[in-house]
Amino acid sequence: MGIKIHGSPFSGATLRVVAAANEKELDFEFVHVDMSVGAHKQQPYVALNPFGQVPAFEDDDLQLFESRAITKYIAYAYGSNGNALVCEDMKQKASQAVWMEVEAHQFDPPASKLMWELVFKGMFGMEVDMAIVEENEAKLAKVLDVYEAHLGQSKYMCCETFSLADLHHLPQLHFLMGTQVKKIFDERPHVSAWCTDILARPAWVKTIALQNQA
Amino acid sequence: MGIKIHGSPFSGATLRVVAAANEKELDFEFVHVDMSVGAHKQQPYVALNPFGQVPAFEDDDLQLFESRAITKYIAYAYGSNGNALVCEDMKQKASQAVWMEVEAHQFDPPASKLMWELVFKGMFGMEVDMAIVEENEAKLAKVLDVYEAHLGQSKYMCCETFSLADLHHLPQLHFLMGTQVKKIFDERPHVSAWCTDILARPAWVKTIALQNQA
Repeated sequence: MGIKIHGSPFSGATLRVVAAANEKELDFEFVHVDMSVGAHKQQPYVALNPFGQVPAFEDDDLQLFESRAITKYIAYAYGSNGNALVCEDMKQKASQAVWMEVEAHQFDPPASKLMWELVFKGMFGMEVDMAIVEENEAKLAKVLDVYEAHLGQSKYMCCETFSLADLHHLPQLHFLMGTQVKKIFDERPHVSAWCTDILARPAWVKTIALQNQA
Repeated sequence: MGIKIHGSPFSGATLRVVAAANEKELDFEFVHVDMSVGAHKQQPYVALNPFGQVPAFEDDDLQLFESRAITKYIAYAYGSNGNALVCEDMKQKASQAVWMEVEAHQFDPPASKLMWELVFKGMFGMEVDMAIVEENEAKLAKVLDVYEAHLGQSKYMCCETFSLADLHHLPQLHFLMGTQVKKIFDERPHVSAWCTDILARPAWVKTIALQNQA
């Protein structure tokens, strides 16, 4: 049966999981969940993810959901494949966990609101709320101030090599680079260099090619 | 130098870390961060957590922040102390990661908004917004429907033993049990039994005793 990733190529959380699978050079089947007809809110999909959100993941009889749990499974279960995505040293592992939590709790909330306003609302012909954009751009800029100081001391989020703590940011970075918010990344040299570097990774380039096949 | 936990006994995130330390029977110094005078937004605290939020953690020269990263460090670094808080089997570990992400991304957002409205606003003499309460009570009830089905098949969130996937919920459960929201837990028998069980753990009872010393 092998590995199946269920999701949409326009879902950031789905792309996060595909990116991890590509870094690990895994063979997998991509199962498109047609969110335009609400397939993610119905059976059979909700048997895979009871919250009715993409993505979901299968590896033979193992079924998982929540993108950041799936990437961790891929990183550990396929540790010897492709590129290492996790540190093994206890202290480095702790620091990696800190920056993964920072992505989830500090970076993602304003980044996701900006993606919704500036990327997805346009796709659905909805009107952008500029007050929400301004508020979240200011919040994200403060997060990027911390990132700028941190990335001035370390090439990647944790350790000196790319890891899940960087990878988890890729979908939001990808979508925001095509919006007015790009400027708050460009204004910060270490943040800007980090974005350019990680967005150019072959596994990520392969990941976003999924959007052209959609 | 040993272990120091910096935070406030009325911060859920701080209590989450103290609970993990107590489950592991660790000796630690609790350093009160006086948020009423903004100590968390100033030096020396922001050198420990650049986002100016509690808690922060020290273990000799290791400095960490983000409560869910700290609990993981405690669980792994002190694996042989006290109660086991993580599974070692790869598939169980993956399932545990799923339910930890569920707590962070499904349960915590509505639970934290309800805690703010129904617990903390009262402490600060602020007026409760009942529209926000209703909206988030409905969101939380849907999450608890998934929990009810899940806990009908498994005594705890992951595996048949208490783990971080349960522990991470304790602060929100503790605060919400004293509010009108208690009824949506009581209405679901498996959820209700799980709450009663984990809130009675000696390590949690010891944790909330911190509030009496404040």
